[in-house]
Amino acid sequence: MPATEFSLIYRYFSALGRGHDIDLSVGDDCAIVRLQAGERLATSVDTMVAGVHFPEDSFPEDIAYRSVVAAASDLAAMGARPLGMTLALTLPEADELWLTTFSQGLAEAVTACELPLIGGDTTRGPLTITVQVLGALPLAQGLLRGGARPDDQVYVSGTLGDAAAALAFMQGQWQPPAEAADYLLERFNRPPVRLSLGVELLGRATAAIDVSDGLLADAGHIAAASGVKIRIDPEQLPISSALAIHESIAQIRRWALGGGDDYELCFCLPHAEPAPPGCTRVGVVEEGEGVDCGIDIPAGYQHF
Amino acid sequence: MPATEFSLIYRYFSALGRGHDIDLSVGDDCAIVRLQAGERLATSVDTMVAGVHFPEDSFPEDIAYRSVVAAASDLAAMGARPLGMTLALTLPEADELWLTTFSQGLAEAVTACELPLIGGDTTRGPLTITVQVLGALPLAQGLLRGGARPDDQVYVSGTLGDAAAALAFMQGQWQPPAEAADYLLERFNRPPVRLSLGVELLGRATAAIDVSDGLLADAGHIAAASGVKIRIDPEQLPISSALAIHESIAQIRRWALGGGDDYELCFCLPHAEPAPPGCTRVGVVEEGEGVDCGIDIPAGYQHF
Repeated sequence: MPATEFSLIYRYFSALGRGHDIDLSVGDDCAIVRLQAGERLATSVDTMVAGVHFPEDSFPEDIAYRSVVAAASDLAAMGARPLGMTLALTLPEADELWLTTFSQGLAEAVTACELPLIGGDTTRGPLTITVQVLGALPLAQGLLRGGARPDDQVYVSGTLGDAAAALAFMQGQWQPPAEAADYLLERFNRPPVRLSLGVELLGRATAAIDVSDGLLADAGHIAAASGVKIRIDPEQLPISSALAIHESIAQIRRWALGGGDDYELCFCLPHAEPAPPGCTRVGVVEEGEGVDCGIDIPAGYQHF
Repeated sequence: MPATEFSLIYRYFSALGRGHDIDLSVGDDCAIVRLQAGERLATSVDTMVAGVHFPEDSFPEDIAYRSVVAAASDLAAMGARPLGMTLALTLPEADELWLTTFSQGLAEAVTACELPLIGGDTTRGPLTITVQVLGALPLAQGLLRGGARPDDQVYVSGTLGDAAAALAFMQGQWQPPAEAADYLLERFNRPPVRLSLGVELLGRATAAIDVSDGLLADAGHIAAASGVKIRIDPEQLPISSALAIHESIAQIRRWALGGGDDYELCFCLPHAEPAPPGCTRVGVVEEGEGVDCGIDIPAGYQHF
């Protein structure tokens, strides 16, 4: 990779690499991160490939932002306090404009997720973005998938189905009014990251996961890990007013139940535990196995 | 990715993910790693792209092994104790044989580097392997690049130039005798990982780096970070007996000074400090800047 691309990226890196927990950022063989006494490390990695996880003609700033949120969302689902992240960026002949706008999206995400960019690798090849996130958890706590118990209530944050509807719009399968389209695209390109909700749920939720593959698929992971059945009530799904415009309630529910990339949290609370603000009860945990929503939806979201 | 590929990888993952410091491995939103009291985290990420960092027709087990060592070598250069690693694997239509042999190389590397495989992501696309390594450093220690001082002595571990010579052989530019060829290929495909040397150098070496881009380039990073000049003596370069067969001493030195991918350590010790076993003094630190070896060698190794 020509020196100009390296130096451009490192110029951005060095500005984005500072943080309270960071002893050493980009520029040596490793980055060095401090944990507090009584903390342990939580880590996750996510890769996005052009033409698979995002349209080839996506704006670079959106690719950067979504790549970070997809990884940071796993920290949220664990209840981890964000520490920092690294970026492995493989790109073809890329021009300075592309790198500049990509770095701007990265900077937005660093701020939104409180994840300083502490290291990375840049290689030449087909566009692929791998983000590894590092977070801190108390030694005795962490939101796992395996703790859901019968009679727990199932909740989700925010609204569901917006990202899938945005994708349908981008692919010409649906033409919402301009205002709704703008809202849905914003939800797709700037998904929420529920880090503070995750921390708030530590010690309260019995199980949690982020909705990246679709509610049915992800609730299915909780059900499998916990050895329980999860019953989802389609009537209770939180739907944005932009999505509610769609004329077919069946289609809305398919997006909300089967669509991925919303990056909301799905979690289980004991019956007596009050719901956090902005979260909606969508179901209940029962004895048994699998997920039942009373509707036949193809399981497992197919990414773009 | 079809379920069969996922399950094959996860079958290997789950067997490779156990370790003393690992609270939670593959299977939840994050992996969880424990550090000891008085430790901090060191981390680095390295990507290898088919056709860029290794020949397209490389054996999958070699690709896996070299990818891990390339990343683990950064922990060695920092003096970090290995904790674990994650793997982001992007692959085209891959058959079960490919995945099985890839996983075997991965298993070898997990053992050799003492890096349990605690997480990962598998995506469909052009073959790209990103390995992120996690290690532990004492709170007050770490081998940085910036501490070399005039009169320090410069050392390297092992021998230099073998990987570059192996590459020349693979590309048909040199035909060594069979035994030498076998040795060089083994050095290329199963490079050393100097993790225990790195830990041994903590508190002794003033600066360290791993030789991934070539001695001149990597010593240059130490010189730049330390604000010093490094003088390398080509007469002192440690050369394997396999490489010493080559008829041209000039070519041998070009490989040893400019060739990358050897993954040895280059480090600086104060004058009075004894050399660790298996290491060779190759130069000295002086006032000034840059690297001088008295020979004109193209700086910066071009990967395959």
